[in-house]
Amino acid sequence: MPGKNFKGEIMAMPHESQVLRTFENGLLEISSRIVPLSSDGLDVMSTSALAVASREVAKGDDAAADYTWTSRLVAVISDGSAVLGLGDLGPRAVLPVLEAKCAHLKATAGINAIPLVFSDRRIESIADALAALRPSFGAVSIEDVSSPRCFALEQLLQQRLDCPVMHNDQHGTAVAVAAALRNAAAVLGRDFASLRVVVVGAGAAGISTACLLVKSGIADVTVVDTRGVVHSERTDLNKPKREISLRTNPRKIVGSLADALVGAEVIIGLSSGRIAMEMISLMSSDPIIFSLANPDPEIGPEVGRSLAAIYGSGRSDEKNWITNLLAVPGIFKGMLSARARRMTDAMLLSAVDGIVRATGECLSPNRIVPSALDPDTCRIVSAHVALAAGCGR
Amino acid sequence: MPGKNFKGEIMAMPHESQVLRTFENGLLEISSRIVPLSSDGLDVMSTSALAVASREVAKGDDAAADYTWTSRLVAVISDGSAVLGLGDLGPRAVLPVLEAKCAHLKATAGINAIPLVFSDRRIESIADALAALRPSFGAVSIEDVSSPRCFALEQLLQQRLDCPVMHNDQHGTAVAVAAALRNAAAVLGRDFASLRVVVVGAGAAGISTACLLVKSGIADVTVVDTRGVVHSERTDLNKPKREISLRTNPRKIVGSLADALVGAEVIIGLSSGRIAMEMISLMSSDPIIFSLANPDPEIGPEVGRSLAAIYGSGRSDEKNWITNLLAVPGIFKGMLSARARRMTDAMLLSAVDGIVRATGECLSPNRIVPSALDPDTCRIVSAHVALAAGCGR
Repeated sequence: MPGKNFKGEIMAMPHESQVLRTFENGLLEISSRIVPLSSDGLDVMSTSALAVASREVAKGDDAAADYTWTSRLVAVISDGSAVLGLGDLGPRAVLPVLEAKCAHLKATAGINAIPLVFSDRRIESIADALAALRPSFGAVSIEDVSSPRCFALEQLLQQRLDCPVMHNDQHGTAVAVAAALRNAAAVLGRDFASLRVVVVGAGAAGISTACLLVKSGIADVTVVDTRGVVHSERTDLNKPKREISLRTNPRKIVGSLADALVGAEVIIGLSSGRIAMEMISLMSSDPIIFSLANPDPEIGPEVGRSLAAIYGSGRSDEKNWITNLLAVPGIFKGMLSARARRMTDAMLLSAVDGIVRATGECLSPNRIVPSALDPDTCRIVSAHVALAAGCGR
Repeated sequence: MPGKNFKGEIMAMPHESQVLRTFENGLLEISSRIVPLSSDGLDVMSTSALAVASREVAKGDDAAADYTWTSRLVAVISDGSAVLGLGDLGPRAVLPVLEAKCAHLKATAGINAIPLVFSDRRIESIADALAALRPSFGAVSIEDVSSPRCFALEQLLQQRLDCPVMHNDQHGTAVAVAAALRNAAAVLGRDFASLRVVVVGAGAAGISTACLLVKSGIADVTVVDTRGVVHSERTDLNKPKREISLRTNPRKIVGSLADALVGAEVIIGLSSGRIAMEMISLMSSDPIIFSLANPDPEIGPEVGRSLAAIYGSGRSDEKNWITNLLAVPGIFKGMLSARARRMTDAMLLSAVDGIVRATGECLSPNRIVPSALDPDTCRIVSAHVALAAGCGR
C-alpha cells in the first residue's frame, strides 16, 4: 500500500519494498568500544579484570553509574496498544517504531536506548517487571501506549522506579508545542500569557499540552474532545479529563468545538479528526493554527496557511514541523547526564526554554521552531534540563 | 588490589586503574545501520514508513523475526547472586561481567546481546518479568546465578518462554569439557566411552558436565562434592544432586574424593577447593587432568602437567584453555539462526561435535581444544547447532 498524503494523492513516498529492505533484521545493533579477548592490550574477559570492575561497582550507585552502560541507557517501553495512528497492533508491531526512536536517540543525543515490549499489558505487570529490572537502565521512555491507560502507567512507574520516567507522546509533545507557541507569539508581537487557546483532542498529547500551557502561564486554555468542551459538569469524563477540566476552561464554556473557538486566537489540533474551514472563521482574526495530527492533519497546510498568521504542522515534510523529537532526546540526555532520579515540571519548563533558545533570533512565521535534525537543538535543550535537575554535568 | 596468580605471585595483570578506565561508562553502545531523519534517502522516522513496517510485523512471528532486531537478540540475565568466584555481590556488580559477555557475543558470533539484571531475585518474579517481555528478544542466556537456584530458574524459564534458554555456566562448560575430553581421548588413543571419570564439584558446572558426559556415552562418571561422593544413599542432597546421583556412580562408591579417584583415568575440577598432589597419585597412570577453577585452579598447571598425560586449564593464559566461551557464542548463534523455540540435548551434543570438528587434525597433548578467539570455532559450532535444530539458515 503506497503512501497517500493528506490530500489523498499518492505521494513520492518510500515504496513498501524499500521500507522493508531497510527494516530487514531490525535497525539496531550492539557494539562495543572494546575488543574482548584481544591478544594485545587489556584482556577484559579475564576473571581478574572483571573482578576489579565488579568489586568497584558493588561499592554503590555512583560507581555503577560510572562503570556500566546503565547510566546512559533508556529503556523505551510499549505494549503496542496505540501504534502510531494505527491503533492496537500489539507489542511486536510496535518494535519498528521503537527501534527507530532508539536509533534517533543515539543519532541526536548520543544516548543508548533499547526497546522493551510487553505482551502482558496490565500496568501492574509492566511496573513489576521494570521494578525488578531497575538496575539495568537509567531512565524509562513510554511510547505508543493507549490513552487513558498511559496516564496511569506513567504515574505508577514514576512511583515505583527511582529514575526518570517520561511518556513522550504526552510531555515531548507538550514541550514542543509550548516552545512553538512562545515563538509564534513573539513573531506576532502578542502576549503569550494572555493568548486564548483551544486544544482539540483529549488524549495523551492533548491533555498534557493543555496542562503544560497552563503551567507556562496561559490563563485561558480550553480542551475539546469528540463530545465537545471538556468541562467540569460533564459526567462522562475519565480521570485525566476530569483533572484537566478543573485546570482549564476559565470562562466555563459548555458546548461544542464551535462554542470554544469563538474568539480564540490559537487552535492546537492533537486529535485524529478533521476540522472544517468554517470552524476557523469563528476564531479571532489572524489565528495561530497548529495542526499536529500525523499523517492526516485536522486542517491541511494549504487551507491552514491561507487562514492563519502562523501554521504549524506535525509532518516532517512541512515547515514549522512541531514534533516531540524537538524535546525528547534533549530531555533524556539532560536527565541522564544530571543523574536525575525523577522528571519534574521544572525540567519540562526548562526544556521549553531550551527549544526557544535553540530557535535563535531568526524567528519568522515559517520558522517558529528549530530543526529536530540539528544536533544543537538537543544540546541546548539537554543543557537547560540538566541545569534544572540541579547539575550541569 | 593487584591480581595474584594461583601461586600467590603478583602477576603482570592489568592495574586496577587501567581496568576501571576501560570500564568507564560501560562497554556497550547501541548503534544503528540507518541514519534516521537523514535529508536524503529513506526517512525511516516518517509515520508512513514506520506504518509500513509495523503493519508488516503485525502479520506474525516470522515477520517480526524478519523485520526487527529481536530474532538476533539475546537477553543476558543475572541476579548477581554468584558473580565470578566472588559470591553474592548483587545485580549491579554483575553488570561489568554481563557487558563483557555481550561484547564477546558480538565480537565472536555477530549476535546482539543486552544485559538485564534483576534486583528481585525470586525466580518466579524473574520468570514473570521475562514472560511479560517475551516479544523483546530471541533467546535468554543465564549468567552468574547461584546454585542450586540456577537449575530451578533455567527449568522455569524453559517452561514459561517459547524461546531458547541456556544457563551458560552449566551447558557451555559441559559442552566445552565433553569436546576437550573427546579430543584428549583421541590424542591418547583411549576409548572415550569407557573412560573412568571423576567430576569434582557439584555446582552448576559440575552437575551439568557429569550429565552431558553420561549422555555422550561415558558409563562410569562419579561426582564428588565437599562431603564426598554424591551417591543416592545420601540424605543431604539438594534436588539437582539427587538427580545426578541416580545417573552416575555405577560402581556405587560410598566415600570420599580419595575413594572415587582410585583407578580413575580422568579428573575434572569444577570446584573452588584445592586438590592435593597425593590424590592424583591414586588415579591410574598418565591421567587426564582438567582443572577448571578460575583464577585459582584445584591443581596448578606446573604440578598438573608433571603428573598428567594431558592437562586442561580454566585460565585464558594457559594452554588447553577449556572455557564455556568455546561453546556459548556458537550455540546461541545456531539456535537464533534456526529460529529454534527451545534448546535441546541434541543441540548440545551437536555443539560438542562442532568443537571437535573445529579443533581439526592437529591434535596434540597441548592442543585439545581450538582457540575460543578463532571466529571459525563459533562458525563451525553454530552450523552444527543449527543443523540439529532442523534448519541450516
